[in-house]
Amino acid sequence: MAQKPSIPKGTRDFGAVEMARRNYIFDTIKEVFTLYGFSQIETPAMENISTLMGKYGEEGDKLLFRVQNSGEKAALAPEKGLRYDLTVPFARYVVQHREEISFPFKRFQIQPVWRADRPQKGRYREFYQCDVDVIGNDSLVSELELIQIVEEVYRRLGIRVCLHLNNRKVLAGIAEVIGAPDRMMDITVAIDKLDKIGLEAVNGELLERGLNAEQVAALQPILQLSGTTAEKLTALRSILRESETGLKGVEELEEVFRLTGAAGLTGEADPTVKNEVNRALVAKKRSYSESGLSIELDLCLARGLNYYTGAIFEVKALDAQIGSITGGGRYDNLTGIFGMPGVSGVGISFGADRIYDVLTELNLFPESLQSHTRVLFTTFGQDELMMALRWAKALREAGIPTEVYPEPTKMKRQMGYADQKHIPWVAIIGGDELSQEKVMLKNMTTGEQQLISLEQLVTTIQ
Amino acid sequence: MAQKPSIPKGTRDFGAVEMARRNYIFDTIKEVFTLYGFSQIETPAMENISTLMGKYGEEGDKLLFRVQNSGEKAALAPEKGLRYDLTVPFARYVVQHREEISFPFKRFQIQPVWRADRPQKGRYREFYQCDVDVIGNDSLVSELELIQIVEEVYRRLGIRVCLHLNNRKVLAGIAEVIGAPDRMMDITVAIDKLDKIGLEAVNGELLERGLNAEQVAALQPILQLSGTTAEKLTALRSILRESETGLKGVEELEEVFRLTGAAGLTGEADPTVKNEVNRALVAKKRSYSESGLSIELDLCLARGLNYYTGAIFEVKALDAQIGSITGGGRYDNLTGIFGMPGVSGVGISFGADRIYDVLTELNLFPESLQSHTRVLFTTFGQDELMMALRWAKALREAGIPTEVYPEPTKMKRQMGYADQKHIPWVAIIGGDELSQEKVMLKNMTTGEQQLISLEQLVTTIQ
Repeated sequence: MAQKPSIPKGTRDFGAVEMARRNYIFDTIKEVFTLYGFSQIETPAMENISTLMGKYGEEGDKLLFRVQNSGEKAALAPEKGLRYDLTVPFARYVVQHREEISFPFKRFQIQPVWRADRPQKGRYREFYQCDVDVIGNDSLVSELELIQIVEEVYRRLGIRVCLHLNNRKVLAGIAEVIGAPDRMMDITVAIDKLDKIGLEAVNGELLERGLNAEQVAALQPILQLSGTTAEKLTALRSILRESETGLKGVEELEEVFRLTGAAGLTGEADPTVKNEVNRALVAKKRSYSESGLSIELDLCLARGLNYYTGAIFEVKALDAQIGSITGGGRYDNLTGIFGMPGVSGVGISFGADRIYDVLTELNLFPESLQSHTRVLFTTFGQDELMMALRWAKALREAGIPTEVYPEPTKMKRQMGYADQKHIPWVAIIGGDELSQEKVMLKNMTTGEQQLISLEQLVTTIQ
Repeated sequence: MAQKPSIPKGTRDFGAVEMARRNYIFDTIKEVFTLYGFSQIETPAMENISTLMGKYGEEGDKLLFRVQNSGEKAALAPEKGLRYDLTVPFARYVVQHREEISFPFKRFQIQPVWRADRPQKGRYREFYQCDVDVIGNDSLVSELELIQIVEEVYRRLGIRVCLHLNNRKVLAGIAEVIGAPDRMMDITVAIDKLDKIGLEAVNGELLERGLNAEQVAALQPILQLSGTTAEKLTALRSILRESETGLKGVEELEEVFRLTGAAGLTGEADPTVKNEVNRALVAKKRSYSESGLSIELDLCLARGLNYYTGAIFEVKALDAQIGSITGGGRYDNLTGIFGMPGVSGVGISFGADRIYDVLTELNLFPESLQSHTRVLFTTFGQDELMMALRWAKALREAGIPTEVYPEPTKMKRQMGYADQKHIPWVAIIGGDELSQEKVMLKNMTTGEQQLISLEQLVTTIQ
């Protein structure tokens, strides 16, 4: 009868401390989303398979988990699939509920998604996504709000970050002015390697990828772009002067930088930051100041290129080598696949698992997440138990999470329980305490003990 | 290309207001669980099919949703299933993580479950369960804690409830003393109909179900049990004097009533309550007082009889006709199926969907759940927008959820947006306000307007 229990590959159990830490991340994110007027929605885990198929490319289709009723005949094709991301269900939601929604629709959604990927370190078959989007307007104020949210979330979590900003129209413009409008992706990939392999090798790769010498020559001013953001934008404006799309992209970038300045966020990365980062990495100290967010114009940024139509965002932690922890962009046709064209939106997604790893690596989780319970009352007999129950009631009424050890047992065992659960205070009631209507309060960190009244107990713990 | 979007039968989307209300329920429950020292865990949506099969009876097996990778060959049998409840995954979790857990293990879990039931009103294929359990001790203090949690959750939600309490050992004792130890279920079902069909009809049904006349006669003192809880318990003690199991059950009931008394909960239902209830139903007023919880000894209560071994709980709303909104009991062998026998536990489950319906019916959801956003700033031009962004920043720093309408458009449209989102205040900035560094604050409920400074704005809204 006995089975050796396990869970499917690529899935996880979350225990008490892990959950407290995950909730700390989710709650922080939710609070900030709410502060900016975003409302939470939820969609079902299962979608009709027709809603999901063909939305994630051929590879994506293969990674869908299909769901089948047990009772159904095996021959009956399954018609449902597990949510693969939050974007397609959101698009479906907007179209299905268009009559009830007031646009611009500011929504966030924090739910698990499932992918039949080969499980490996840091890649799971079930993981949470935290998406926040504004849909139904094309004002760049929405881009600003998302950047403000990024700043506020990471300030609250104590993670120093740099926000990388690009614009799809600029990328299209670059491809256009060098006479290779269909090679945008090749060009972006090549630019991306500049830091690692150097200018000469990039030029070689561009030729290999089929660009001609003339096109590569025309690209040199882009590859050698330098200076402050303002200087780069001025240079881009000149380089892209023949491309209407490219100039529109430059304008959008300029406007986003202008708005972030007006909203009190600094608009420019400090060129000395990279050295500081290394020092911070060594010191492993919480070093984020109130001075604001670094925002860096980054022409290499090309995430989800086929999908985005304007701004593209990516956020990296300055003090951890972990890749992107938040990303997103502007899209113009999210709902078109469901028959509602021309609805512009912009959104970002927070990577909870990676944020968890950064907070762990930098030791930034608050100590208090080890245990919600503040006090444990020991139990050594019936009368002591009755007193503990009364006192516990008073503490809980004061909002203090409190436990009463449920049965009389050895002191060592009860102390061990408090220790394992990281409960900071133990209130001991023996015969003496009982007759004096006091408890012996033990500080589990210092080991100090003091005999105190109920009033003193509440004050000490609060 | 266009598809008409929909979701699978029996599943639901939750929009902004619905989610705010659901979160209000979940957050209230979570806060109370935490106050009593319970820790949250989560398990994966998918379990190995072998973990689930055979745990819910033959009918249950048919209601499991199976999960299959899309890429897998169709012939390959699916080996994973969606979580059907939180109990079996919890048992699996305890056995799998036994080395890391400190017992008694107080955990709660709030996650969706999936059942391929025929969808109908109030029955869904995806719904949340909220389970709270103590496992690894058999002290009745744990029963007390769960009763305290019930009292506190419903006091906070403003729902007047009665907790029905029974004990499986008492039911077994009754069957034993009337000489029909294998007919416990028949007897309980018959007792349950007493109120509806009367004593004579119940006796007839018992005979039909195969009890003999002598057994039915022996059952009469049970069927005619009346008086206060103390009187009923005294009578039971006498009736069950020949059954060791039965007497143990009576003792457990007595102890639970004693503990609830000691912890300051009233132990007895007021016999006049049922008339009050009808009056309250008519008045639809929030009428729950601080006087505590009604606890009723209820011998008809038999939920999950094969599963429970001691206390059995069920909670009903006094002011709504909706059946059980919380239930549970003591079990002695939850983890036995996974090879870890002899671990006693006790748990209850809150029915979020039914609680939602009760709060809706009794109009008990706080008004503030209509919108988290407190203020909307209008946008009529670039300079006004810049001022709105600065002011919005100040309000958010004061913790006030604030929105800025993202683009200049007609007043009517912006007011309509605030209206639809139930935002209580709109801050209007026109040319005059801009030059005076003030806003025209409109109260959306009363229609009143006043010209005020940033400081006054923060104070007014706080």
